[in-house]
Amino acid sequence: MNIEMIRAAATRIDGHVLRTPLLSSDALNALAGRRVLVKPECLQMTGSFKARGSWAAISALTETQRKAGVIAYSSGNHAQGMARAAAAMGAPCVIVMPSDAPAVKVANTRSMGAEVVLYDRATEDRDAIGTRLSVERNLTLIRPFDEPLVIAGQGTVGLEIAADANALGIGDADVLVCCGGGGLTSGIALALAADAPGLRVRPVEPQGFDDVTRSLAAGEIQQNPAMTGSICDAVITRQPGEVTFPIMQRLCGPGIVVTDDDCLRAMCAAFAHLHIVIEPGGAVALAGALYHPDTIAGDTVIVVATGGNVDPAMFTRALDTVP
Amino acid sequence: MNIEMIRAAATRIDGHVLRTPLLSSDALNALAGRRVLVKPECLQMTGSFKARGSWAAISALTETQRKAGVIAYSSGNHAQGMARAAAAMGAPCVIVMPSDAPAVKVANTRSMGAEVVLYDRATEDRDAIGTRLSVERNLTLIRPFDEPLVIAGQGTVGLEIAADANALGIGDADVLVCCGGGGLTSGIALALAADAPGLRVRPVEPQGFDDVTRSLAAGEIQQNPAMTGSICDAVITRQPGEVTFPIMQRLCGPGIVVTDDDCLRAMCAAFAHLHIVIEPGGAVALAGALYHPDTIAGDTVIVVATGGNVDPAMFTRALDTVP
Repeated sequence: MNIEMIRAAATRIDGHVLRTPLLSSDALNALAGRRVLVKPECLQMTGSFKARGSWAAISALTETQRKAGVIAYSSGNHAQGMARAAAAMGAPCVIVMPSDAPAVKVANTRSMGAEVVLYDRATEDRDAIGTRLSVERNLTLIRPFDEPLVIAGQGTVGLEIAADANALGIGDADVLVCCGGGGLTSGIALALAADAPGLRVRPVEPQGFDDVTRSLAAGEIQQNPAMTGSICDAVITRQPGEVTFPIMQRLCGPGIVVTDDDCLRAMCAAFAHLHIVIEPGGAVALAGALYHPDTIAGDTVIVVATGGNVDPAMFTRALDTVP
Repeated sequence: MNIEMIRAAATRIDGHVLRTPLLSSDALNALAGRRVLVKPECLQMTGSFKARGSWAAISALTETQRKAGVIAYSSGNHAQGMARAAAAMGAPCVIVMPSDAPAVKVANTRSMGAEVVLYDRATEDRDAIGTRLSVERNLTLIRPFDEPLVIAGQGTVGLEIAADANALGIGDADVLVCCGGGGLTSGIALALAADAPGLRVRPVEPQGFDDVTRSLAAGEIQQNPAMTGSICDAVITRQPGEVTFPIMQRLCGPGIVVTDDDCLRAMCAAFAHLHIVIEPGGAVALAGALYHPDTIAGDTVIVVATGGNVDPAMFTRALDTVP
């Protein structure tokens, strides 16, 4: 993994994904007690940053591999990114999804032409299912985060943050990133180390699923005891990746842990002050910035709002909170 | 009014407002039956394009005028744009708002330091109130749409659309614009005529408040019989402006009229497929693109989503619809 892989991914995905801006709001700044700049990857194609890594990975395959097809496992956002990129590049696509994934994610994935295979998140191992189907059906397995081509694609978020921060004259700031297995977090960290070394990535996770935060503190990979029980489906993984963890260990600051309630309130704040729709797992970083300000350094904080694929019922629940 | 005024406004507002991208979604394209590119001005500072015209107008005043202060009348979006720009440039600011304006707009305007004077939309004349206070208190009145400096600021939306459409190779398309008094509509029309003459502006209005559509059809200014009775508060005006109407007459295609229900469904579609929050009046153009496709020409339609300042209760109502 190196910065040249990220720059090459940026070239491959150019014109196929959205170059997102940084959003801000005076009212949000007042709520956070410092300037907050939000990178709204919820506006990205397929509703999350995953469109970047998927396109970066599939576009790097050989023509033979693409024709044979691809397979991925995902709670829904990597699924949609993969389905879109595969359809656009003519690759058959199988997605292994948990049976409790938000209905909107399953429906969107199917509507883009992918074959969806459901599994039980509590009892089955998605990696094993993916690997088995990959062998049986000669499909290239594209892992959601522990895959250099995917990390390179997600890292393009970091190149854009670095460019915008440099243009704004922001020399140092914490960059809060919603963190599951660490593909986005490690990719952004690599990009910032190259292009904006004064910016420091802080992984943010939901309470009870803070494997990265604990792994960074312990100096070795720790697992989550459970795989269900949070509304933040997009960022629930068993443990950080073998590829992503050493990068995070080298480049990231300490993790930040937020509650589900923090996330719902952050969703409501984003609705009211930024007019963006973010899903619970895409709100953990903003929740960190708004409700855990003492863990953050500096006058400016940059936040990645990673995704917006949320059912109306969950969003209505967020609107009932007080930001 | 000419294109040089718009280019000068673009220079003055640069760095003070957001340069919004064009959003798209495969699912939204499928719903519309053609490619839909959405300019999300709901993401703009203060939640609507009005931040552009306000900044453009106040930044063009003399230092003496700014120190004396400004006054505006507005259902809420021009109010917030004015309050922000005035505060940033050190100008005292009075805003005349209808008593039935969404609570969020009144609260936001006050929180930015403006003095709010409420009036009854059904029985009082906001222009008369604004003019009287302007004289009594030596404040410069900045009209919400029939003011060349404001039109120039709103026209910067058109410069950006032209640049992005040209980069995408879009030679001709309809550009649907949510239309109240015509400040944004005429500004965009002027900018496109200069920089992307193959694009044609189409004003979109709510049923019963289609003064611009009827005025264009009649060849002379027509009034709305009522000033209340639509959820689209942001685009309810008595009639097109004296400055804006001749520009629209010269450069715009026929108007499009949508129902309140169309707007709620468009808000729901924008939530689900673009992950943006738009208010009813900011959804009329998208409603036109989605639910009145036969009135539109071409494979691609460009839509301006003008604002996102909506109360949670109204947004929840939109989420209960089927896009």
